[in-house]
Amino acid sequence: MTQLEKARKGEITPEIQQVADAEGLSSEKLAELVARGFVVVPSNKRHQLQRPCGIGKTLRTKVNTNIGTSPDFPDWKRELEKLEVALTCGTDTVMDLSTGGDLKTCRREILKRSPVPVGSVPIYEAAVRARERHGAVVKMSTEEIFQVIADHAADGIDFITIHCGVTRQIVERLKEQPRVMGIVSRGGAIMAGWMIYHDQENPLYAQFDRLLEIARDYDVTLSLGDGLRPGCLADATDHAQISELMVIGELVVRAREAGVQVMVEGPGHVPLDQIEANVKLQKRLCQEAPFYVLGPLVTDIAPGYDHIAGAIGGALAGAAGADFLCYLTPAEHLGLPTPEDVRRGVMATRLAAHVADLVKGIPGAWEWDLEMAKARQNLDWEKQLELALDPQLARQMRGERNPASRETCSMCGDYCAIDILKKYLGGSGCES
Amino acid sequence: MTQLEKARKGEITPEIQQVADAEGLSSEKLAELVARGFVVVPSNKRHQLQRPCGIGKTLRTKVNTNIGTSPDFPDWKRELEKLEVALTCGTDTVMDLSTGGDLKTCRREILKRSPVPVGSVPIYEAAVRARERHGAVVKMSTEEIFQVIADHAADGIDFITIHCGVTRQIVERLKEQPRVMGIVSRGGAIMAGWMIYHDQENPLYAQFDRLLEIARDYDVTLSLGDGLRPGCLADATDHAQISELMVIGELVVRAREAGVQVMVEGPGHVPLDQIEANVKLQKRLCQEAPFYVLGPLVTDIAPGYDHIAGAIGGALAGAAGADFLCYLTPAEHLGLPTPEDVRRGVMATRLAAHVADLVKGIPGAWEWDLEMAKARQNLDWEKQLELALDPQLARQMRGERNPASRETCSMCGDYCAIDILKKYLGGSGCES
Repeated sequence: MTQLEKARKGEITPEIQQVADAEGLSSEKLAELVARGFVVVPSNKRHQLQRPCGIGKTLRTKVNTNIGTSPDFPDWKRELEKLEVALTCGTDTVMDLSTGGDLKTCRREILKRSPVPVGSVPIYEAAVRARERHGAVVKMSTEEIFQVIADHAADGIDFITIHCGVTRQIVERLKEQPRVMGIVSRGGAIMAGWMIYHDQENPLYAQFDRLLEIARDYDVTLSLGDGLRPGCLADATDHAQISELMVIGELVVRAREAGVQVMVEGPGHVPLDQIEANVKLQKRLCQEAPFYVLGPLVTDIAPGYDHIAGAIGGALAGAAGADFLCYLTPAEHLGLPTPEDVRRGVMATRLAAHVADLVKGIPGAWEWDLEMAKARQNLDWEKQLELALDPQLARQMRGERNPASRETCSMCGDYCAIDILKKYLGGSGCES
Repeated sequence: MTQLEKARKGEITPEIQQVADAEGLSSEKLAELVARGFVVVPSNKRHQLQRPCGIGKTLRTKVNTNIGTSPDFPDWKRELEKLEVALTCGTDTVMDLSTGGDLKTCRREILKRSPVPVGSVPIYEAAVRARERHGAVVKMSTEEIFQVIADHAADGIDFITIHCGVTRQIVERLKEQPRVMGIVSRGGAIMAGWMIYHDQENPLYAQFDRLLEIARDYDVTLSLGDGLRPGCLADATDHAQISELMVIGELVVRAREAGVQVMVEGPGHVPLDQIEANVKLQKRLCQEAPFYVLGPLVTDIAPGYDHIAGAIGGALAGAAGADFLCYLTPAEHLGLPTPEDVRRGVMATRLAAHVADLVKGIPGAWEWDLEMAKARQNLDWEKQLELALDPQLARQMRGERNPASRETCSMCGDYCAIDILKKYLGGSGCES
């Protein structure tokens, strides 16, 4: 049985218990949310998780880190380094998106070392194998696609992105009503290319039940990918995107009926004032399935700063109800991220998730800010550095920018507002 | 006559003409906005501006960079370096907040070199002089305060932050209803301390007409500072903050009546879901005077990442109608920023301003994103790098993360979605 099926029977699994404890929620309440499909707890039966996580309604907004090789950078050891960085920075999950070098070893090494749920996009491996065997990505057979999915499930992958909603009809219509950027999702592009080349329906849609069987066998959570997500602001919230979302909404119901945990992926590139509408639409059309967004990026013009553009969109999406934020690094749209890019990406996304949690009223969120405010008021630097989102960076910056003896900081020094007020409104600790 | 008075008479000044041209607006329309006080064009009669800027309704959201010495870092030459960085990064204005070393030389050197409007906070210099002369910040006399303001105006400062709204009544009440963080504005703390020490009303409030006279003589734009802005999320949108805003709203009317250009400063630290309300409140209570916000920071726990926390708040505030964003750097709450901190702060804030401009529908904003989207679709890297918010950084990152020959990028390489689709949906430029 899957976590979903057990929850429906009222069984409190060790994973549910662990997540409930971490979130400060009763395990019964959490099991009920899982049973209704409002929360997923990705945990493949074959992957022993030290830190399982729950994603969805009433829970802390979660952060995912994408790692993985590419044809230009096929060294999986470097990806393990990124895994370490992401874990140190506090990511909740990781996804292995490898497309270069020894894919299987990379996946297995990540699974072995990751205490948190690991996701993947099996169609990437299917595309790599198809190039090796047939000389072209689109020449993969349906059997080969499902074989790779089964391999990932058997290896212990906890959640997989599957582009089931890219149907023939939507792609046909897209050819008549072109977008500025067409399809920018790799998985979406592969499936669209496959359908055109084979003149057949998307097998992941046509044979969705076969997919559900594999997912159910291993308890792999399905992350229904938005292969038609907009690639730029001008394409946001358009016919193709919403058509796909409506298909996905139907598949959510079928997955739940089959006892398979399911979440839904979302954009991408969205202007700030369309974000809330996108979240509400997903929640309605997909029966409140957990919403996993990529950014969204609120502008197209910020390569080098897409972790910030994504943090703006992610904070807003989270505040509107999105449950799971996929990080973006400064390298997005420029190249494969370095470990330092990963660090900056995870931190910016954790910041956005916390900002959303303040709005959602997640237990502990306001308390954290309040503790920081009190530490500031007391000019208690040690406490401020401990409480910082990134204590290591904050400590380093404080050290570099201040004389060792300062009780205030080098911005205001003797003109510290807190210090002046202590003198005149009472209180202690004044040095000036 | 001030810009405001001339605009009321229908006169098109060279500054109005230049701003109108830069914004793609008719000079008559701009003059009308200035005449009504919805837009300010800070330009001291004694400061020849190469790049004047308009701040307010219908115009591009502007970005300010704070520079200036501190007691720990009194070297003004280093601040000129920051000025250069800020200008290169595209700041619209700068403020000299110096409190250490040779204040006058620093101010005059900045004024001499800055092609954009320069602001200051005269009470900082008054505080420094008071420590020198009397041994304590609060011992400054009213005459000394006004003398410093007159000095700044005579030197050519284009806009000054003045904390007129911190009245005795509000501070008295604050003593009875304490906040978590009291007063965190340096200017606000100095004025509150002054009132308590002297047992007198805030002279900048009590003698507001005297301030207006100086401002009118030199056409210094008043930026009515929020000395009672919240210092943490828990204090946001509280009685003290709104009380001060209401006082400021009355002073806006008096300034306009006196022919003095005026804008209003805003928070600070605000939870994401209170930002829009803050902007709407300011616009209503202050008769649509331009709104100049500091961030706002949407969480307290992000020292080292406050430029990102500020970009989230700034984008949202701008989208809701704020006109002018004061940058925050990664060093906020930790120390005086380095030139590199300045660069990162200006860029993050320009990003936020642009995101707001997309929502506001500012001419040129959507076109910029669309051009980038087209360049991406064409895999035209040279064009993408040219169009980037920070072309220099984008170029450097692209170079470091990719083999020289790549037409796609090292994230996807042969699995580039755009590339795959070109092959199957038509188009050219396909290499795989």
